[in-house]
Amino acid sequence: MNEQNKLWGGRFSAASSDLMERFSQSVSFDRKLYRQDIAGSVAHARMLEKQGILAAAEFQQIERGLAELRDEIESGRFDWSVSHEDVHMNIEAALTKKVGDAGKKLHTGRSRNDQVATDMRLYLREEVDGICAGITRVQNEIVKRAGRESGTVMPGFTHMQAAQPVTFGHHLLAWNEMLERDHERFRDCRRRINVCPLGCAALAGTGFPLDREMTARELGFEGVSANSLDAVSDRDFMMEFAAAAAMMMVHFSRMAEELVLWSSPAFDFIELSDEFCTGSSIMPQKKNPDVAELLRGKSGRAIGNLVALLTLMKGQPLAYNRDNQEDKEPVFDTVETLKLCLAVFAAMMPGITAKRENMRTAAAAGFSTATDLADYLVRRQVPFRDAHEIVGKLVACALEQGVALHELSLGQFRGFCRDIGEDVYDLLTLDGSVASRNHVGGTAPDSVRQAAEEAALRLRARTADAG
Amino acid sequence: MNEQNKLWGGRFSAASSDLMERFSQSVSFDRKLYRQDIAGSVAHARMLEKQGILAAAEFQQIERGLAELRDEIESGRFDWSVSHEDVHMNIEAALTKKVGDAGKKLHTGRSRNDQVATDMRLYLREEVDGICAGITRVQNEIVKRAGRESGTVMPGFTHMQAAQPVTFGHHLLAWNEMLERDHERFRDCRRRINVCPLGCAALAGTGFPLDREMTARELGFEGVSANSLDAVSDRDFMMEFAAAAAMMMVHFSRMAEELVLWSSPAFDFIELSDEFCTGSSIMPQKKNPDVAELLRGKSGRAIGNLVALLTLMKGQPLAYNRDNQEDKEPVFDTVETLKLCLAVFAAMMPGITAKRENMRTAAAAGFSTATDLADYLVRRQVPFRDAHEIVGKLVACALEQGVALHELSLGQFRGFCRDIGEDVYDLLTLDGSVASRNHVGGTAPDSVRQAAEEAALRLRARTADAG
Amino acid sequence: MNEQNKLWGGRFSAASSDLMERFSQSVSFDRKLYRQDIAGSVAHARMLEKQGILAAAEFQQIERGLAELRDEIESGRFDWSVSHEDVHMNIEAALTKKVGDAGKKLHTGRSRNDQVATDMRLYLREEVDGICAGITRVQNEIVKRAGRESGTVMPGFTHMQAAQPVTFGHHLLAWNEMLERDHERFRDCRRRINVCPLGCAALAGTGFPLDREMTARELGFEGVSANSLDAVSDRDFMMEFAAAAAMMMVHFSRMAEELVLWSSPAFDFIELSDEFCTGSSIMPQKKNPDVAELLRGKSGRAIGNLVALLTLMKGQPLAYNRDNQEDKEPVFDTVETLKLCLAVFAAMMPGITAKRENMRTAAAAGFSTATDLADYLVRRQVPFRDAHEIVGKLVACALEQGVALHELSLGQFRGFCRDIGEDVYDLLTLDGSVASRNHVGGTAPDSVRQAAEEAALRLRARTADAG
Amino acid sequence: MNEQNKLWGGRFSAASSDLMERFSQSVSFDRKLYRQDIAGSVAHARMLEKQGILAAAEFQQIERGLAELRDEIESGRFDWSVSHEDVHMNIEAALTKKVGDAGKKLHTGRSRNDQVATDMRLYLREEVDGICAGITRVQNEIVKRAGRESGTVMPGFTHMQAAQPVTFGHHLLAWNEMLERDHERFRDCRRRINVCPLGCAALAGTGFPLDREMTARELGFEGVSANSLDAVSDRDFMMEFAAAAAMMMVHFSRMAEELVLWSSPAFDFIELSDEFCTGSSIMPQKKNPDVAELLRGKSGRAIGNLVALLTLMKGQPLAYNRDNQEDKEPVFDTVETLKLCLAVFAAMMPGITAKRENMRTAAAAGFSTATDLADYLVRRQVPFRDAHEIVGKLVACALEQGVALHELSLGQFRGFCRDIGEDVYDLLTLDGSVASRNHVGGTAPDSVRQAAEEAALRLRARTADAG
Repeated sequence: MNEQNKLWGGRFSAASSDLMERFSQSVSFDRKLYRQDIAGSVAHARMLEKQGILAAAEFQQIERGLAELRDEIESGRFDWSVSHEDVHMNIEAALTKKVGDAGKKLHTGRSRNDQVATDMRLYLREEVDGICAGITRVQNEIVKRAGRESGTVMPGFTHMQAAQPVTFGHHLLAWNEMLERDHERFRDCRRRINVCPLGCAALAGTGFPLDREMTARELGFEGVSANSLDAVSDRDFMMEFAAAAAMMMVHFSRMAEELVLWSSPAFDFIELSDEFCTGSSIMPQKKNPDVAELLRGKSGRAIGNLVALLTLMKGQPLAYNRDNQEDKEPVFDTVETLKLCLAVFAAMMPGITAKRENMRTAAAAGFSTATDLADYLVRRQVPFRDAHEIVGKLVACALEQGVALHELSLGQFRGFCRDIGEDVYDLLTLDGSVASRNHVGGTAPDSVRQAAEEAALRLRARTADAG
Repeated sequence: MNEQNKLWGGRFSAASSDLMERFSQSVSFDRKLYRQDIAGSVAHARMLEKQGILAAAEFQQIERGLAELRDEIESGRFDWSVSHEDVHMNIEAALTKKVGDAGKKLHTGRSRNDQVATDMRLYLREEVDGICAGITRVQNEIVKRAGRESGTVMPGFTHMQAAQPVTFGHHLLAWNEMLERDHERFRDCRRRINVCPLGCAALAGTGFPLDREMTARELGFEGVSANSLDAVSDRDFMMEFAAAAAMMMVHFSRMAEELVLWSSPAFDFIELSDEFCTGSSIMPQKKNPDVAELLRGKSGRAIGNLVALLTLMKGQPLAYNRDNQEDKEPVFDTVETLKLCLAVFAAMMPGITAKRENMRTAAAAGFSTATDLADYLVRRQVPFRDAHEIVGKLVACALEQGVALHELSLGQFRGFCRDIGEDVYDLLTLDGSVASRNHVGGTAPDSVRQAAEEAALRLRARTADAG
Repeated sequence: MNEQNKLWGGRFSAASSDLMERFSQSVSFDRKLYRQDIAGSVAHARMLEKQGILAAAEFQQIERGLAELRDEIESGRFDWSVSHEDVHMNIEAALTKKVGDAGKKLHTGRSRNDQVATDMRLYLREEVDGICAGITRVQNEIVKRAGRESGTVMPGFTHMQAAQPVTFGHHLLAWNEMLERDHERFRDCRRRINVCPLGCAALAGTGFPLDREMTARELGFEGVSANSLDAVSDRDFMMEFAAAAAMMMVHFSRMAEELVLWSSPAFDFIELSDEFCTGSSIMPQKKNPDVAELLRGKSGRAIGNLVALLTLMKGQPLAYNRDNQEDKEPVFDTVETLKLCLAVFAAMMPGITAKRENMRTAAAAGFSTATDLADYLVRRQVPFRDAHEIVGKLVACALEQGVALHELSLGQFRGFCRDIGEDVYDLLTLDGSVASRNHVGGTAPDSVRQAAEEAALRLRARTADAG
Repeated sequence: MNEQNKLWGGRFSAASSDLMERFSQSVSFDRKLYRQDIAGSVAHARMLEKQGILAAAEFQQIERGLAELRDEIESGRFDWSVSHEDVHMNIEAALTKKVGDAGKKLHTGRSRNDQVATDMRLYLREEVDGICAGITRVQNEIVKRAGRESGTVMPGFTHMQAAQPVTFGHHLLAWNEMLERDHERFRDCRRRINVCPLGCAALAGTGFPLDREMTARELGFEGVSANSLDAVSDRDFMMEFAAAAAMMMVHFSRMAEELVLWSSPAFDFIELSDEFCTGSSIMPQKKNPDVAELLRGKSGRAIGNLVALLTLMKGQPLAYNRDNQEDKEPVFDTVETLKLCLAVFAAMMPGITAKRENMRTAAAAGFSTATDLADYLVRRQVPFRDAHEIVGKLVACALEQGVALHELSLGQFRGFCRDIGEDVYDLLTLDGSVASRNHVGGTAPDSVRQAAEEAALRLRARTADAG
């Protein structure tokens, strides 16, 4: 912009350099906020009118003008200009061009500082609702599947070593728990997002007789911010959102790691549908679990965005500093990442085929019922630590002979502990093992079926609440 | 440890290397959890006894033995051994040495995996309560001072430029808002901490007829974890704690930055008490705001610990992996950092002297009432944007003549806008400016006084609730 | 893409879902690499021809076809298609459409895995050269200015407290040192970027008789990668670049912090040109140091991108995983950020006006020559620690009386130390203080002038080398 | 400390609070620097004597006194005191107590600001040398083993899917390449560490006629820092070290991930020695790859420490700020982590047993020679893309029939492509496949053997250089 017409230009004698304009502009990314910006302006103007600061006709001009601008933007006819810096100035300038003096009055009792904070809160509130709905959809898929896999036995791992048999449904419900906490965290975060900064103006509040509660109500906020200096400099709601998002992406990275492993030939526990895999440009036989890999990788992006925001805010004195223009892109990127990951995950779930036989075979290997044997001894009054020691030696013996535990003879068993009886063989089965863990949180098919049903009920109730 | 006596040694033929022992041990730092570990064991044993798994006498031996061990630890007589790896094994081994077979039975239906998760949850629950109390103490200091400074005028800054006059009390209440949100976040986090994993055993639950609800109740937990695989692999409660902590430390870094600036000779708004400053080893005249600088710097530590935890969990398949031994040190370090920072901040606050004259002088410079002039014009029906433009030109004119706005003659004012009257001079005063912003969240002395009173009431109510 | 025509489609029975395609595509951002991709393909094809794997005519078709595609891309006529996933497949498919079978032969002995690694190395090598040139330009501006300000006295700060007088030129040369190290780090990084992965194919190398050295030479690489598994999975060169970039942005954040402070009314040491400042939407008098604030804030972005890359690579088994598609956007974003910051900083420097009188006045306040007094005593055989103690008491005495050190009477001086003579007053001057520090690295005007000259020579030599 | 005797106390009227002392002290961790601190003081004192600032007798007293203090510290007789804040003040105070006035003169022309920077540079230079030696040791183990496994065929993975057969030696040499770059980066970093800040004093240099080059030479530095303001505020050398360390730990996390996978029952490619594994407290059969898991997890710590340092420095104005006390712990922790990880990795390597039959069996499954088949067709003039498509269909056909590629009949082969002859069966063997990739960086046994030999030579040369 070489002809000078910035909205703040009165005090200045030299125009911005082009380079500076490019460095300083935010309209290339903050135009995404046009809906929120317009909604905020309409609410502000309506309140100004009610308070007698705008005439009724002026408010109507503003409201109509902004509605037209919204149409122009949505139909691609709006001419965004870098020389107007940001979404706020672009829209205000266009409004003034359209409706004249009424447009110039819109900014009465307001500053870009409270305006942008309002826009971002409106934006993030809506996106958090969408993300929560997306989480619910993924949970629904997981829980549905968990119910169907409540009796599917697979090895449970610790340290990537087969530890004890579990059910696949039980494993899936562990995923559901992670997402349940994510949902809670986003709901908690939403409460702190949903506070209205309008009326705080630049930093000190305003001398105009605004009705802050009215504006807040119009925009669906639950309250007004309690301190104007804080309101324009606070970015907690973005950091908190980014932190909740980073944790959710860490969850996805963990689930994705498992999908990658399970679909590798070494495990071969599941088959992903072709739709969610790709091939190789050189190796014709490849079927790669790309979605899972990308999900895993995208955790880096979410953690990086969180760090960017924390670094950004570190050491900033109050109130608003221009540094904060840097807050938007990490938030936008995290929002888009989450939405896409949730949609893809929900869509991918139904296409996952469990290879139940492979799971069971793997569970049978590796002495995974050794703990059951130890517990058996405990029930025969062997102190747990002694039982643990005895079974450890039995495993070593079986390993040496290259056999499974249940392939040892009763004599061999009794060579290590006289308390072992014929009934030991029943207990070394996979089904016996999982069925015995039939408490809240346990892996028994019955427990898992019940847990899946309860989870489904909770999800339904949640959806009803939101609806 | 070259004589082999690990509690898990049955299966092994070669002893650990010394190097490995050093690499692998955690007792040097997790011994901090001895109280939680013992409390968890007592609750577990009591439940085992109630369920008929332990005899009454065995439980009594265990309870008494653990009480003795706790005394030994607290009086420094306990012999921690790296060869017993961690706090759990050290205590269990000592218990068995003390009470024999009963000790060997303690681990029935339990694993280190659910045990360590329980210990960390008990630990963090208690520390979060302490941190919340610490936040309240700091807020009390801030709010008390804010009430006393409700009429102290200082420049409000945006972009480090004087923007509009505000009151010092108002600025302090902005700090209070930050800490209010921190407190909320820690309370929300506490709900997710306060869930009992005991009974989940290694990963699959247990075949023993445990009463998980009883154990949870004994330990003051609000509920039991709903999925055993999740319970032993979940570290969300630590990540969420670390995220809340990082945000609080970012807040401290912002307040600290202001303390550093305000006590610099360029600002000279406050004097810190000697107690919280240090001198220079070479420059005899120096009085450095070290506490504030250290507070600012410690945000790095908290953010680093958060990143360490997020990275740690990234891509981990279920359930427990040994990687998770790395979860403790960042959490411990963050806890200690927060507690110390809160204590220091609370102690430092009363010793801060406001240099009110310097604040007022700085507020008077720099055209900080220019916005009031624009608002004055708006009240005379000049559209805001035109008013803004006119005042911009008046500022440029005053800058050129090297005078303040109120030093322009009425004629000069009217040269820019015919609507300006004699009454303009009243409005360009600092006290008039701040007094006019008398709404919720505004900087007017009356608003600030009222806000401080309400905040004090809320803090009292909070303390009563906690008490 | 619902009609199936993926280049790897032979093995697949179901088409990708649209959602998957959106999730999985990279062409929306990796098209940036078209020049590198085409250059790499031409070099690969030329080598294939030399090795007799392609006929001369085929190579010519390929070369001509790729040249045409490059023109199409640059003139905006190329039709990028998400269904072709990435830049590589888009270009190869278009080539085959254009030249038929020769196009289908281009990928002989190559995989996207070595291809994308090559593209990114070519890209980053060029950008690092541009960044190094940008650093040099900024250094030139700094050094030029430092020479002119070698005699400008300002307060040197530690702990934001005036410590000792320094010269502004000396301060600017400190900035130069930071950037000198940045330049070195990028040069070191470039060596590790400049290695050619082509010929490593998917992960194992290839059975075709390629001449890897020839391809590397054609593309200006200094050598070929020594291990094919490493070559396709290594992203060190990106992480190292991102780390060097994060450090440079931390430097900029430090310089920017100083610019913000110095242009605040509290310091008022410099004036930034209007071109690089903006105004306020509400406060007409404001002139904000936006460039400096944005520079400061952008450090968050660079650190976030580094963390994203480190997290991305954490725990990835060899060789290529699709996670690595996530490597590009953080690198691209960091490159663009650095280039823009360097350009803006270089452009902003000449417009900075030093307010020399204000600097000198601030330096005179605050007992900044107290160290000189201590040193004076040391030269009179008072041990340093005693001298330090004596001067500390003199400062306390002057503070109490509200005077500067040189305003104490000789009698007062001698009351604290008999060794003080009349000559003490000469030494308490600013010019005497700075002039006495006339060694390598010292702040004396002569030392600074000489350091600036030597720095300018080094920069000239560097430019000559690069030229 | 309630009796006041701080070395900077002259100006102060009130003593530090105990809390403040605890918050502010660093001696609990920086005492680690006592050797460097003493060495730096001796060199400084020797130079002062040569310059005539200290008398010969004074220097001798100082040198002898410091030697005695060093003995006292190393034999545990030194009484570290929190009231003396840090290692520097503790030692100086003890020296003065021991030798009187000479001790008080030691700090002439020096400040803690240049002193601590010197200490940290001496410390890190030595540790980097140790780390480089540790890397070399690990590389030696890897390269030795790679030579022995040059003919061991295993599956090469991309996307965790079997891609093409490779040799285990080749895979190990990929690890060697990662570490080779780490070594290079630490060497580059060392150059920037090895610069002497002494003589820069507090921030401005000194008026005493120091011989900075002499001090630097005495301490083995390659040069003196060129700017005193930069010298006392620069922490680049720590950030760069932490970045190199984070990258190395990411490498270890990748290798560790592979060790974990390979020792899981699903892969069963290797057996780790008992020495470097642990068992389970509940599951007697477990043998867990704890070292590998801890190595993987410790990457979080290293990345966290890097972020802590970058955050710490963000936005700090020059010169020294007390924030920088926070620089030490992350650096110390990273150093200790690296040293331990390197030692453990080197010790663990020889105990890794390759299960060659399992590796070969896995390589034979999964169509891993499909690329060789495509290449075969290319040699018969089928364009690569067509060949790729044909082989994709052959794989789909074999999958459908549940057979391996080489189990298809010649007729079936020719049904897809007439160019296939009887010789196709030779080519589908694992050994044929790997042997064909016999170029620099390729996986052929001959190439690997040669690469291992060359690597061994380079490592020997490196050790000779260092020795």
